[in-house]
Amino acid sequence: MAKPVAPRGLARDRVLDAAMTLFAEHGVHGTSLQMIADRVGVSKAAVYYQFQSKEGIALEVIRPSIEDIARVIRIADALPDQQQQRAVAISGLVEMVVRHRRLAVVFYGDPAIDALVLSDPEFNAVTGRLRELLEGPERDPVDRIAFSVFCSGVGRAAADPELADIDDEDLHRALLELSGRILSPVEQPSQP
Amino acid sequence: MAKPVAPRGLARDRVLDAAMTLFAEHGVHGTSLQMIADRVGVSKAAVYYQFQSKEGIALEVIRPSIEDIARVIRIADALPDQQQQRAVAISGLVEMVVRHRRLAVVFYGDPAIDALVLSDPEFNAVTGRLRELLEGPERDPVDRIAFSVFCSGVGRAAADPELADIDDEDLHRALLELSGRILSPVEQPSQP
Repeated sequence: MAKPVAPRGLARDRVLDAAMTLFAEHGVHGTSLQMIADRVGVSKAAVYYQFQSKEGIALEVIRPSIEDIARVIRIADALPDQQQQRAVAISGLVEMVVRHRRLAVVFYGDPAIDALVLSDPEFNAVTGRLRELLEGPERDPVDRIAFSVFCSGVGRAAADPELADIDDEDLHRALLELSGRILSPVEQPSQP
Repeated sequence: MAKPVAPRGLARDRVLDAAMTLFAEHGVHGTSLQMIADRVGVSKAAVYYQFQSKEGIALEVIRPSIEDIARVIRIADALPDQQQQRAVAISGLVEMVVRHRRLAVVFYGDPAIDALVLSDPEFNAVTGRLRELLEGPERDPVDRIAFSVFCSGVGRAAADPELADIDDEDLHRALLELSGRILSPVEQPSQP
């Protein structure tokens, strides 16, 4: 008999919340189902009843972010102009990382999460389209490097504990400004 | 009797090399001493004879980078002008992350490494002084956010597997240009 799918609800949210905190502190690899169960105050079997595996929990923890990115992409793709699409994608991403500051610790710092995103066809499609939108049609090395700096830099800054005292509005304004600088075309050196 | 300090040598380097590869793939938490021993092709006891713990190995893996940063700081601190000091620190850091591209995977993506750096007084002093040099004397929120975006963005881009086909020289040039943009003063919005 197939294992029942856990209904959405309080117990499920408590597991995801505990997992997010532990992932941020210990990484996905450093967190066990037992640690998650202990933090929620239930048995490991109770956690296992709701989720098939630790990886399954990690996928659910990052799902809201991926769904946010998918929504931003739909908004961007509906616009006629490539520069407009790009501007919307940048602005939407910055808004998203600031809103999910706590989650960004997990999302932009854990090789296990990168591997999970790559393993999930839906997540992979979303991040692939985002890359296309932001790198531009040329996809030359400089565009690709700028995209990488933008993703890691902006994503991790939102989660940086050193910046925890800065309020969301100030963080949002500064990250948007920095994103514009990072992703504006880099001047090519003239050939000798 | 105190445990002997492992001499520098081939066996030691092989352990560090194996550990770096495994840390990059599985994170520090996801790597065991047994995995390191298996990769080198020796017993766990042989690894344990050279290093007290996995954390001790991780500290030695990142030590060359910290020593590089310390050297850049000494060069910068010898200059009379604050803007010059800052320019040298930026240029030195970019050179360093490009030279240690493989190591940057570990250095800029693992919460366990962040914790280790914080736990070591010498490493902590180096990263603290670097922060002072790059954030500038004002240390207003915008400077602090730009510093965070620079460290994560540039550090992780150097290690991004998506950019592995780009040669060191092109990567160096683009990262230096992007660093200058990120760390140049952000225009403050005029007060209403």
